[in-house]
Amino acid sequence: MTSPEPAESRTQTRTQRRSAQTATLAEIAREAGVSAPTVSKVLNGRADVAPATRSRVEDLLRAHGYRRRRAEATRSPLLDLVFHELESAWAMEVIRGVENVARDAGLSVVLSESAGRLTPGRTWADQVAARRPHGVILVLSGLDESQRALLTSRSIPFVVMDPAGDPGADVPSIGATNWQGGLAATRHLVELGHRRIGAISGPSQMMCSRARIDGYRAALETAGLPVDPALIATGDFHHETGYRRGLELLRRPDRPTAVFAGNDLQALGLYEAARELGLRIPEDLSVVGFDDLPVAPWVGPPLTTVRQPLTEMAEAAAKLVLALGRDEGAEAATRVELATSLVVRSSTTGPAEEQVLY
Amino acid sequence: MTSPEPAESRTQTRTQRRSAQTATLAEIAREAGVSAPTVSKVLNGRADVAPATRSRVEDLLRAHGYRRRRAEATRSPLLDLVFHELESAWAMEVIRGVENVARDAGLSVVLSESAGRLTPGRTWADQVAARRPHGVILVLSGLDESQRALLTSRSIPFVVMDPAGDPGADVPSIGATNWQGGLAATRHLVELGHRRIGAISGPSQMMCSRARIDGYRAALETAGLPVDPALIATGDFHHETGYRRGLELLRRPDRPTAVFAGNDLQALGLYEAARELGLRIPEDLSVVGFDDLPVAPWVGPPLTTVRQPLTEMAEAAAKLVLALGRDEGAEAATRVELATSLVVRSSTTGPAEEQVLY
Repeated sequence: MTSPEPAESRTQTRTQRRSAQTATLAEIAREAGVSAPTVSKVLNGRADVAPATRSRVEDLLRAHGYRRRRAEATRSPLLDLVFHELESAWAMEVIRGVENVARDAGLSVVLSESAGRLTPGRTWADQVAARRPHGVILVLSGLDESQRALLTSRSIPFVVMDPAGDPGADVPSIGATNWQGGLAATRHLVELGHRRIGAISGPSQMMCSRARIDGYRAALETAGLPVDPALIATGDFHHETGYRRGLELLRRPDRPTAVFAGNDLQALGLYEAARELGLRIPEDLSVVGFDDLPVAPWVGPPLTTVRQPLTEMAEAAAKLVLALGRDEGAEAATRVELATSLVVRSSTTGPAEEQVLY
Repeated sequence: MTSPEPAESRTQTRTQRRSAQTATLAEIAREAGVSAPTVSKVLNGRADVAPATRSRVEDLLRAHGYRRRRAEATRSPLLDLVFHELESAWAMEVIRGVENVARDAGLSVVLSESAGRLTPGRTWADQVAARRPHGVILVLSGLDESQRALLTSRSIPFVVMDPAGDPGADVPSIGATNWQGGLAATRHLVELGHRRIGAISGPSQMMCSRARIDGYRAALETAGLPVDPALIATGDFHHETGYRRGLELLRRPDRPTAVFAGNDLQALGLYEAARELGLRIPEDLSVVGFDDLPVAPWVGPPLTTVRQPLTEMAEAAAKLVLALGRDEGAEAATRVELATSLVVRSSTTGPAEEQVLY
């Protein structure tokens, strides 16, 4: 068995490298004990290949780091957009951003949901490989190693938006300045005079969530205020959890006078908890959200929140993935964070006199 | 020039009809002065056909009502979903419903936006014809005659959800009982004791909007109350318009004590107008929405509204279009309306004493 792509090929010019890869395709066929057209069928996602053969060929393509040559890569006019879950109210903002860029590029958007799993399923990756889109944008989703290899072997670039976990230094990603946002939200409350400030986090496995809470902590610490772990509740970015964790925080004898709600949906859940307990916002409780969903200015009272430029982030992710597909990726930054900004509306004010004396 | 499909073929059996159509394909090639493979290329959406030839072949396909035979129709595992506009907050509910059905059927959803036009563009239809999805679901969008012919010639079934205009008796569509919803919303207000009840409609070219306002009128008339045209404002289903038309209605010296807002977004705009004028909901103004968006229970006060089962409607539309693709369409009803239901929350109450005496 010969090594299909010698180590020195890595220093060759692009053209030389491509010839080396063409050789590799034939060698992969030999090594798998199949014909070259069969390898081609696997690459094209054709269904008429026995699963065992297909799997063997995929393994070899992955092992050899095979990358489809540019000229062969006849792409469909599609752009794949994968959500961790479509429940989130901000999914629409993201879809709009991707749709804007896709429309200008003459592409249609294919929408998938990894349905609660943080990594989309194997079937999904096969479907993507078969339909050969111009690129894949993953929202709060990662790819496992074999999925990455599958897309790479088809020259299908991908970008992760607002990664839930640490996407790895070599994975292109677009995020927002979550830490800065958590800091700004909490500083605003400190400056209004609040001393007992609670927080409801998102899921702890999501980096964006951890960053927001770390920003909250930094604001308290730099103001010389104690960080009370009892006032930090763990949520999951849903309305229901904002309501439940909110009830727990607000029923404490030493309840906080202000809460950084982690995101807007949790802030709205907290609104409901406050209403149920007869607490007025902002007189009895100040609330800051995160996201600035379209509904944030429409709720009562209009929500003070940290604006995350979701549509712009999605546009940036779509543009980046298309640039990667045009081989302009080398110059593009692989980790971009767009700025967040505090939007002060009516859900925050200074604490009541008796609350300060509490 | 012979007639490619004689009139009597319409009474033939399905198998006979299919043979007649096969003959038509060859005849279309002859009539267009091209080879049969060229016609096939046009049918398959291939780019390597001269525009003039393509257009001539398309015209003949349409003129002859050519319908691709089932066996030829190798479909992509895609389902097309087209929105009139993605701005609407309820688009997410619809996407979720379609995604549910698509996932179960092993299909991916391709999302498009007709970008404010009520009929998606020609390019869109060509792209759909080329990617050959299992079906097309149009939300608040119609197709023009040539687009219908294009999809029909490729055996790509389509269903219109919640049609904006009159889709025509032969266009399969899924709607909701909009008239009943407008009736129920207004009856609720009448039963609470309101006599001056305003309304903000959606765009008058949308049938769903007209039906809701007709239901509103029917409720007033059957209660023996006058219908005052000055209290019916024309909106466009957006928050901003709810706010603007709301300000106009509420600044009238004989302002209404209750308003049927046409949809939830307009209701939220109306909330803002009421806040700005210092009017309390529901004490000074009762408000009923339409849709029951996820935010409806979260706003302050929680919104009384007419629930439109958007996710279920989208699921029904997706199931219907897949059934049509399996030739089960003949048995399926072509116009289905799912039931709406009034959800009473906290934005409605009886009018204040002095308002009744007004």
